[in-house]
Amino acid sequence: MTAKIAILGASGYTGAELVRLIATHGGMEIVALTADRKAGQAMGQVFPHLRHLGLPPLARIEEVDFAGIDLVFCALPHATSQAVIADLPRGVKIVDLSADFRLRSPEDYETWYGKPHGAQDLQAEAVYGLTEFYREQIRAARLVAGTGCNAAAGQYALRPLVAGGLIDLDDIVLDLKCAVSGAGRSLKEPLLHAELSEGYHAYGYGGTHRHLGEFDQEFSALAGRPVHVQFTPHLMPANRGILATAYVKGEAPAIHDTLSQAYRDEAFLQVLPFGELPSTRHVRGSNFCHIGVSGDRVPGRAMVVAALDNLTKGSSGQALQNANLMLHIPEHTGLTLAPCFP
Amino acid sequence: MTAKIAILGASGYTGAELVRLIATHGGMEIVALTADRKAGQAMGQVFPHLRHLGLPPLARIEEVDFAGIDLVFCALPHATSQAVIADLPRGVKIVDLSADFRLRSPEDYETWYGKPHGAQDLQAEAVYGLTEFYREQIRAARLVAGTGCNAAAGQYALRPLVAGGLIDLDDIVLDLKCAVSGAGRSLKEPLLHAELSEGYHAYGYGGTHRHLGEFDQEFSALAGRPVHVQFTPHLMPANRGILATAYVKGEAPAIHDTLSQAYRDEAFLQVLPFGELPSTRHVRGSNFCHIGVSGDRVPGRAMVVAALDNLTKGSSGQALQNANLMLHIPEHTGLTLAPCFP
Amino acid sequence: MTAKIAILGASGYTGAELVRLIATHGGMEIVALTADRKAGQAMGQVFPHLRHLGLPPLARIEEVDFAGIDLVFCALPHATSQAVIADLPRGVKIVDLSADFRLRSPEDYETWYGKPHGAQDLQAEAVYGLTEFYREQIRAARLVAGTGCNAAAGQYALRPLVAGGLIDLDDIVLDLKCAVSGAGRSLKEPLLHAELSEGYHAYGYGGTHRHLGEFDQEFSALAGRPVHVQFTPHLMPANRGILATAYVKGEAPAIHDTLSQAYRDEAFLQVLPFGELPSTRHVRGSNFCHIGVSGDRVPGRAMVVAALDNLTKGSSGQALQNANLMLHIPEHTGLTLAPCFP
Amino acid sequence: MTAKIAILGASGYTGAELVRLIATHGGMEIVALTADRKAGQAMGQVFPHLRHLGLPPLARIEEVDFAGIDLVFCALPHATSQAVIADLPRGVKIVDLSADFRLRSPEDYETWYGKPHGAQDLQAEAVYGLTEFYREQIRAARLVAGTGCNAAAGQYALRPLVAGGLIDLDDIVLDLKCAVSGAGRSLKEPLLHAELSEGYHAYGYGGTHRHLGEFDQEFSALAGRPVHVQFTPHLMPANRGILATAYVKGEAPAIHDTLSQAYRDEAFLQVLPFGELPSTRHVRGSNFCHIGVSGDRVPGRAMVVAALDNLTKGSSGQALQNANLMLHIPEHTGLTLAPCFP
Repeated sequence: MTAKIAILGASGYTGAELVRLIATHGGMEIVALTADRKAGQAMGQVFPHLRHLGLPPLARIEEVDFAGIDLVFCALPHATSQAVIADLPRGVKIVDLSADFRLRSPEDYETWYGKPHGAQDLQAEAVYGLTEFYREQIRAARLVAGTGCNAAAGQYALRPLVAGGLIDLDDIVLDLKCAVSGAGRSLKEPLLHAELSEGYHAYGYGGTHRHLGEFDQEFSALAGRPVHVQFTPHLMPANRGILATAYVKGEAPAIHDTLSQAYRDEAFLQVLPFGELPSTRHVRGSNFCHIGVSGDRVPGRAMVVAALDNLTKGSSGQALQNANLMLHIPEHTGLTLAPCFP
Repeated sequence: MTAKIAILGASGYTGAELVRLIATHGGMEIVALTADRKAGQAMGQVFPHLRHLGLPPLARIEEVDFAGIDLVFCALPHATSQAVIADLPRGVKIVDLSADFRLRSPEDYETWYGKPHGAQDLQAEAVYGLTEFYREQIRAARLVAGTGCNAAAGQYALRPLVAGGLIDLDDIVLDLKCAVSGAGRSLKEPLLHAELSEGYHAYGYGGTHRHLGEFDQEFSALAGRPVHVQFTPHLMPANRGILATAYVKGEAPAIHDTLSQAYRDEAFLQVLPFGELPSTRHVRGSNFCHIGVSGDRVPGRAMVVAALDNLTKGSSGQALQNANLMLHIPEHTGLTLAPCFP
Repeated sequence: MTAKIAILGASGYTGAELVRLIATHGGMEIVALTADRKAGQAMGQVFPHLRHLGLPPLARIEEVDFAGIDLVFCALPHATSQAVIADLPRGVKIVDLSADFRLRSPEDYETWYGKPHGAQDLQAEAVYGLTEFYREQIRAARLVAGTGCNAAAGQYALRPLVAGGLIDLDDIVLDLKCAVSGAGRSLKEPLLHAELSEGYHAYGYGGTHRHLGEFDQEFSALAGRPVHVQFTPHLMPANRGILATAYVKGEAPAIHDTLSQAYRDEAFLQVLPFGELPSTRHVRGSNFCHIGVSGDRVPGRAMVVAALDNLTKGSSGQALQNANLMLHIPEHTGLTLAPCFP
Repeated sequence: MTAKIAILGASGYTGAELVRLIATHGGMEIVALTADRKAGQAMGQVFPHLRHLGLPPLARIEEVDFAGIDLVFCALPHATSQAVIADLPRGVKIVDLSADFRLRSPEDYETWYGKPHGAQDLQAEAVYGLTEFYREQIRAARLVAGTGCNAAAGQYALRPLVAGGLIDLDDIVLDLKCAVSGAGRSLKEPLLHAELSEGYHAYGYGGTHRHLGEFDQEFSALAGRPVHVQFTPHLMPANRGILATAYVKGEAPAIHDTLSQAYRDEAFLQVLPFGELPSTRHVRGSNFCHIGVSGDRVPGRAMVVAALDNLTKGSSGQALQNANLMLHIPEHTGLTLAPCFP
C-alpha cells in the first residue's frame, strides 16, 4: 500500500529535500505540491535537480483536494503554517516543518515569537518531533512539529546528559556552526554568495535565537527544573551542515558512556569512539548524526560535538522519519542513503 | 541472488563513491576492499561518512581470496591497474576505473601514456565503458574500461552529432569546467583549499590532456575519418561536477532534435528543452547527465552543454551501471538517487 | 593638491571597491558618498570593512553640493546613471561605471538596451574607458564610460590581434568564467550562496549578453569591418575574478609576440611566458591583468587567456586609473597593491 | 633611508604575505629571499601574484650575505627556525614568525613542543611580539617572536579583561573558527579542497593545541596567578580569517567599556559598538582586528568576539608592524590597506 502525500510549500529547500528523500522511499506517492508565488510552474523548473521525477506541478493550496491524502508535509513559513493547518481536514496527518508547533506553552510561544499563537488547540495537540525521544507519541499523533535544526543538533548532544545529571546544568555553552541553507531560499543580503563565501560570523546571539525556546522547554522538562543554556549560532560559508560544539562541566568518559548507551540502538545517532570528534562533511545529505566526546586538560571539563545535515536529519529527514512512524511504515525507509562526500 | 563484489583501491574518492552507491543497491555485497598504504584500517577511519556500513576492513590485494568474487571494481592508479588485472583469475569480471584500458590501439596508448602497454591482450579484450553506446558489448564483456570523466561529458554532448554529420568535424571546441575531485585524493599543491578556493585556471591545455586520446578514438570511429577536437579543461573551486561547453558549427534546432531523439529512452541522459542550458549543481551526487543546446546570434553556430558529476556518471556511477549489465542485474539498480541540491 | 571626490551609488560593490582603492591613493579626498535606499547610514554600517576610514555618511544625491567637487564616480545602475549625469554641473569630471555610455552609437544602445538613450549628447561626448587604448582621449575627457568587466577581459586578450590581423576574425570564441560580484549586491535567487556554491553554469548565452555590444563596436572599429565574436559567460562559485578563454585561429607564437610587444610598457597588463596560462587567484584584489598564450595540437589554433579582477581592473580600478589621467595625477597612483593571495 | 630586508622561508604563505605588504611600504627593500626546496626558482614562479615585483630569486640560506642586511623575517618551520637564527650575525635584527621563541620558559617550551629548546640564550632574549602590549620592548629588541595567530586573536579579545579582573579567570571558553591558510602550504589530506570545502570540524582539541602555551604564559602573567583557558580551534572552509568567540563570566557593558578604553588609541584594534559582533570577511587581507561584545539572556554571561586575518594581523602584518618598531619606522607603514571585501 502506497501512502498519498502532499507537500505544502514545496518551493523551498526543505520541500525539495523531502522530494529527494521520498523519491527513494518506495512506499509514498507525492500527489500534490504547492507553492504560493511559484504556483503553475513545474517542480523541475523551480528545482532542476528533480526534473526526472514524475511530479505534479506546483499548485495553490486552495487547488488541492485533501480527500485522498494520507499525510501532509507542511513546509510553510511560520505563522502561515498555523493558519493553513487549522484549515486542513481532521482526517489528514500532518508533519509541520515550521516553528509553529514546537513550543507547547502558549506563553512560551508568545515570548519567543512575539505574538499570541493563532491555533492553541492545535498547539496542545502537537507532538514534538525529535524522533528518538518522542517515538511513541509520534506514532500516535495526528500533528507532529518538526524541531529547529539547531535545536535538534544541540539536543542530540545533550539530552541524555541533562536527563542523567552528568553535567552542570547552569553552565552549558552551545557554540553552533550552521550552514546557510538553514536560512532557506530567502533573498537576504547576508545570504548572497559574495557576502558569505570565505567568511563567518555569529548571528542571533545574546540569548535571542528562537531555538532557545526549544532548548528551555526540553531541557527543563528533562531536568525537572529550569535550564537555560547559552546558545550562539555562527553562519558558515557552506550549504549544509550544523556542527554543535557543547562545552560542559562533567566527566568526559562518563559522558561518552552515557551517550553511547543512550544511542546504542539508534541507527541514525552514531557515537564516535571516545576522543574523536565529528565533521559536518561526513553526514552531508544523510539522516545521520555523528556525536563525539572529548575531555580537556582542565579537569571536569568536556566537549560534546554533534554534526548533522540541517536539511536532512535537522529537518526533512526528521520529518520523513516521523511520517514513517505515523503511517506505520518501517521507520528508516527512504532514509538510509549514505552521506555524499566529497 | 547477491553478487559478491571487491573494490581494489578503495581509499580513493572513486572507491568511496562506489561504496556509497552500492550501499543502496540491494543486490550486491562488498566482500573485499583493498588499499595499499592504508591497509589494515577500517573503511570508516579513511572515510568516516561510510562508518555506519558493515564493511570489511581495508586489506592488501594479496590478502584477497578472489575465488568467490563475482566482480571486481578496480579503482587503482593507471599503470598499476594493468599489472593487477593481469593477475586476476579469468573467472572474475572486472570494471576498471583507471585509464589503462580506454584506448584500444597499443600505439595510441603509447602515444598518450608515454610507454608501451603492459597487457596488450587484455587491452584487446576490454570494452569501452560508455554505457549508452556500448551496452551490448558491455553485457557480454569480462573486462570493461571506465571512460575518462571529461571524455564521458564531451561524448554525451557530441556523439550523436558526430555520427549524424550535423556539425563541422574540423571545428569543435570543448571548454570544460572540472571539479577538483576528478584529480583524486592526491597530495598536490594546486589541490589545496588555500590554492584552489575562489579561483580558476586552465590546465592540461594545448592538446596535451590524455582524454584527447579517447575523443580521437571514439569520434574518428563514429565519423569514419580522423576527428581532432580542441579540448581544454579548467579547474574549478568545487568538489563535484563537470560542465562541458561545446562550441560547434551546425544548426542548433537540428542538433537539439538529434540529441533528444538519441537519448529519448535513456533514463540518465536528460536533454533539456531547447534554449536551456544545464548546471552542475543539479546533477551533484547523481548518475544523471543534463544536456542543453543553444543557438547563437552568429548563424550556423551552436553550443551544446553537458553537466554531470565526475565521481558518479563520470566514474563510479558509470562503473556500477556497467557492472549491473555484466551481472544481468537491472541496469539502473542503485543509481536512481536524486541529485543532492543545495 | 588633493582632488575632491564624490561617489554616487556607494552602497554597491564597485562603490566599496573605489573607497578601498582611494584609501591608499594619497591625492584624493572623498567628500561625498550617496546611496538611495541606504541614505543616512554610515558607510561603515553598510560595509564594515571600511569602518576605520573617516568617511562622510551616505547621503541622497540631492543633498550633495557639487560646487567644490573635482570628479564624480558614478556607480549607479544603468538608465539611472544617464539621468543623474545629465543633471551634474558641467564643471565636474565624471567617470561612469554603469553601462550607459559604453556604446557610441544611439542605434547600438537601443539594440542592446531595448530603449532609446536618454542623453544622446552626453553619449556623443563620452570616451570609452579602456585605459591602455584610449589614454589620450581619457586625459582630455570630461565624461569617461567604464567598460564592461567581461568586455575588458576579452579586449585585453584580443585587441592587438584583431588590429594586427593575426587571427581569423570570423571565428573567435570567448568562453568566460565570471565571479559573482560582477552581478552586484542584488537580491536574486541564483546569487545566493546555497544556489551558487559548488556549481557552475552558462548564463547570458546565445549571443544575448550586452557586453557583445562593446565587443562589436570595438573589434569592428579596429578591424575596419564587422566582427561578431561568440561570447558566453559562465557564473562561478567565487567572489572575484574573470577568466576569459579565447579560442582563435592563428599562429600561437606570433600571437604571443604581438601581445608582448603591445603591452611591453603597460604596468598592469602582464603577458606571461609563452605556454603559461593565468589564474584568477593571482590577480585578486589588484589592478593587474595576466595574459597567457598557448598553441594547440591542431595546427593554426591557439588560446589566449586573460585573467583580471572584475571589481578592480574590470571596474573600480579601471575607473580610478582613468580618474588619475583626467586629474593629471600619475596614472598608477592607488593602484599598485599586490594581489591578495591566498 | 631604506632598510635592507631578507625573508627566510619565502615560499610559504606568510613569506608571500610579507612580500605583498612590503611592496606597499616604501621604506624597505627586499634584498634576499630564501627557500629550501624551491631555491633557484623565481618568486613569481612560486607565487605568480607577485610576478610584477622586481624580487630577488629564491636562494638557499647559505647563499645569503647578511652583512648589509638590517632585518630578517624568519618564516621557517619551528625547530628549523631556532637553528637558523642561532647562526645569524648578532648585528642583524630578527622577526621570527615560527613558534620557536614564543614561550619564555625552557620548561614550557619542552612541555608544549616535546623536546628541549635548542637555543635557550636566544629564547631568553626574545620579546613576545604582540605589538600593542609589548611595544616598548619590541622597539629595543634584537629578536622578536611572532605570536601564534590563534593566540593573537584570543589575547586581543581577553587581555584587558584578564588584567582588569573583569571576568572569572577559571571559566573562559575560547571557541575559534580558523581559516586553512593558518596551516600553511603543506601537503596534508585534510587541507585538500575536496576534503575541506563545505564542511567544518574541531581539531587540536582537548587542551592539546600548542597555542595554549601562549595563553597560559600571557594570561597567568597578567593575572598574577595561573590561568588555564579552554581553547578549541575549528577548521573552516575559507582561506583567511580567525573568528575567536570567547564565552566569559562578567558584565558585558563593563567588558565593552574596558576594551574600548584599552584600545582607544590603537589604530588596528577596532572595538565595535556594544552589541555588534564582527565578521572575518570584514578584516580580510588587512591588519585590522575587529572586536565585539555582547551580553546574554543569562545574567553575568558575556561573549567577546575578535576577528582578524591570520596571515596579516595574525602573522605577517604583525611581523611587519614589529619590524617597523625595531627599525624606528612609523609603526603603521605598509599596514593601512583596507580589507579586501567581497
